[in-house]
Amino acid sequence: MPTGAPDGAPIADADDLAQADGTGGVIHDVVAVGNALVDVLARSDDEALERLGLAKGTMALVDAGRSQVIFEQMGPTIEASGGSAANTAAGIAALGGRAAFLGRVADDALGRTFTHDIRAVGVTFDPVPAALDGEDTVTGHCLVLVTSDAERTMATHLGVASDFDSVDVHDGHIASARVLYLEGYLWERESAKTAMRRAIDAAHAADASVALSLSDPSCVERHRREFLALIEDDVDLLFANEDEVRLLFGGGTSFDAAVSNIEETGILAALTRGAQGALVVTPTGPLEVPAAPVAEVVDTTGAGDLFAAGFLAGITHGHAPADAARLGALCAAEVISHVGARPQADLAALAAEKGLGID
Amino acid sequence: MPTGAPDGAPIADADDLAQADGTGGVIHDVVAVGNALVDVLARSDDEALERLGLAKGTMALVDAGRSQVIFEQMGPTIEASGGSAANTAAGIAALGGRAAFLGRVADDALGRTFTHDIRAVGVTFDPVPAALDGEDTVTGHCLVLVTSDAERTMATHLGVASDFDSVDVHDGHIASARVLYLEGYLWERESAKTAMRRAIDAAHAADASVALSLSDPSCVERHRREFLALIEDDVDLLFANEDEVRLLFGGGTSFDAAVSNIEETGILAALTRGAQGALVVTPTGPLEVPAAPVAEVVDTTGAGDLFAAGFLAGITHGHAPADAARLGALCAAEVISHVGARPQADLAALAAEKGLGID
Repeated sequence: MPTGAPDGAPIADADDLAQADGTGGVIHDVVAVGNALVDVLARSDDEALERLGLAKGTMALVDAGRSQVIFEQMGPTIEASGGSAANTAAGIAALGGRAAFLGRVADDALGRTFTHDIRAVGVTFDPVPAALDGEDTVTGHCLVLVTSDAERTMATHLGVASDFDSVDVHDGHIASARVLYLEGYLWERESAKTAMRRAIDAAHAADASVALSLSDPSCVERHRREFLALIEDDVDLLFANEDEVRLLFGGGTSFDAAVSNIEETGILAALTRGAQGALVVTPTGPLEVPAAPVAEVVDTTGAGDLFAAGFLAGITHGHAPADAARLGALCAAEVISHVGARPQADLAALAAEKGLGID
Repeated sequence: MPTGAPDGAPIADADDLAQADGTGGVIHDVVAVGNALVDVLARSDDEALERLGLAKGTMALVDAGRSQVIFEQMGPTIEASGGSAANTAAGIAALGGRAAFLGRVADDALGRTFTHDIRAVGVTFDPVPAALDGEDTVTGHCLVLVTSDAERTMATHLGVASDFDSVDVHDGHIASARVLYLEGYLWERESAKTAMRRAIDAAHAADASVALSLSDPSCVERHRREFLALIEDDVDLLFANEDEVRLLFGGGTSFDAAVSNIEETGILAALTRGAQGALVVTPTGPLEVPAAPVAEVVDTTGAGDLFAAGFLAGITHGHAPADAARLGALCAAEVISHVGARPQADLAALAAEKGLGID
C-alpha cells in the first residue's frame, strides 16, 4: 500500500483540490487511462455465442479477420462510443465532474466519432493521432453481443488502442488530477504497461490517488501476480466484480475470503455484485450498498464502468464511501436500462434528485 | 386512382401471392424505395435547435459543411442505421415479413454498416455500389437531435443517396412484390423521380399496389401538386401524419377536411396522429385506432416508419385495415421507447402476444 492511501474517508478535500492545481493547469477529478473503443452492439442468443466460440459475459481479444467474421454473423447493430475507462470518464463528466481520458485512436471515422463523443460530454481528450499505415491502423472496436438476459459478451479488435505507450501519457493532466484511474484491460503489451507505470509515477509525484479496475476475469487470470503487486505497492482504490476479485486471490477463493484478503491490504475497494449491489471494503470494515432499482434491465454493457464513474465522482467531491457507492449504483442502473455503455439520461439531474449530486 | 386499388379489404390474398411469383424469383411482401441513411443521434434542447437554425420536428437537407458544423455542436452520439423507407423495410422483416430495399450507398464505413444492418434483419438489399470520387461520395447520414419531449429534429446530408436513379431500381424485385412503397423524401431530384416513376410502372405491370409516404411537412410543401397527381393516378395506399395530410390539400385545411378530401380519392390512407393514434381512411369510412401504450416515450425517431411497417406487414398478410393499424401502432410504440429508429425488441413476438402476428 502506498503512502497517502485513503483510510475510508473521501480521497481528497478542498485543500487537496487546491494543491492539485500546482501546475497551474486544468484540474481534473479523474484522469482515466484505457482502450479507446467504439462499441458495435447487437442482440444475440446463447446459440450464436456458442457457434462463434465466445464465452458468455467475458471479453475476448480478436484480430481484424475474426472481428469481421463475427460482425458478419451479428444482427442489426448500433454503434456507440465505448471503452471501459472512457465510459467511466464520460459518466464522471455527465455527473458534473471533471475528467480527462488518455487513449489511442486512429485518424478514421471511428476515431473521429470516439473523439467527438467523449469531448461532447465534457471530457478532456487530446489524443496523439496514429498515422494510417495498414490494416491494423484502425480505431479499436468492440463487438458487443447482448443476450435476452441483458448479459453482454464482447469481442474486441484493439487496432491502434493496443499501441498505447508513453507518448500518450500527458504528465500535465495527471499532475493536475485527484485520481489516476487505470483500466486493467490495457495491461497487455509491454509498451502499455510501461506507459501506465509512468502514469503511476506521475500520480505519486503529484500526490494523486491511483485507482485500478480489474476489468475482466480473463484479464485477472492473465495478470494476477502483476495486479497483486500493483495493489501492494501503488493502488489506493480497487474496482472489481465478484468473479474478478475471487480470481485475483486464486481460483478456488470464496468471495468472503477475497474480501478478507482485500481488508488485509488496507486499500479501499468497491466490489460490484450485479443485482446484489456492491460491497465497499474500507479499513474500518465492509459496507453493503444495494443495487438501484431498474424498470427493465436491457443491456448490462457499461454497468461496472458507470458504477466506477459514480463512485469516483462521489469520492472526489466529499461523499463518504457508502454515498459514493450509492451514486455508483444509480449510474449503473441508468446505463443498464438501455442499449449502450454511455449514459443517455441526465445523470447530474438523477443524482440531484436522490440527494447524491456532486455540486 | 389506379385500377386494382384496394377497397378497404386486405391488399392481396393467397391467390395474389401465388401470382406475384410470376418471375420465378423471390417473393417480397414489400419493396421499399428511399434514402439509405445512417442516423447519428444525440440529445439536444430547444435552445440548441434555435442556435443551429433547425425547425423542431422537421427534416432539413444540409450540405457536407453544414452537417459538419451541426455535428460538432451535438452532444455524445449513437449511430444506427436509418432512412425512412429502410426503417419500414427493417420493421416488416422484424415482424417476419419479406421486404426488399432499394437505395444508394457509398463504399465507405457508413455504407457497410447500413448494408450489414438491413441485411442482418433479413431485408433483401443488393445495392449498386457508388465509386468513391469526391467529398460528396459518402453514404448519406442524418443528424438527429432528440429533445427532452422525445421530439426529433433532423438535418440530413444525403451524400450518394441523392444520386438514386433508374440503375438502382431492380424490376425483378418489384415484379415479385405485393406492394411498392415509396418514400416522399426521395422526391427531390429529377433522376430520382424518373427512377420512382419507372418503379411505379413496374409495379403496375406486375399488379402490385403502390404505397406512398408523404415523409415530412416541408417535403409536402415542395411537391404537393406532384404528390396529388401521384395519388390521383398511381397510389393505392397513402401514409401521412396530421400536418402532412393537411398541407397536402393546402395551408389552411383542417384535418377533417383533409380526411374528406382523401375519402373522395377512394384510396386507402393511414393517417398517424402521435399520441392520438391513427385514423385509417377506407372507401367504407374512417376507422380510429388508438396509440399503443408506452411506459416512457424516449425518442420518436422512426415512429411513422414503424407504423407503416406494421400496417404494410398486416395488410399484406390478410389483416383487416383496423388490425393492420393496430399492428402499426404496436411497432411505433416499440420504436419510440428507445433511442434509434429501428426496432430493438422482438417485434414478431410482441405482435404474436397481442394476437396480431403475421404468421
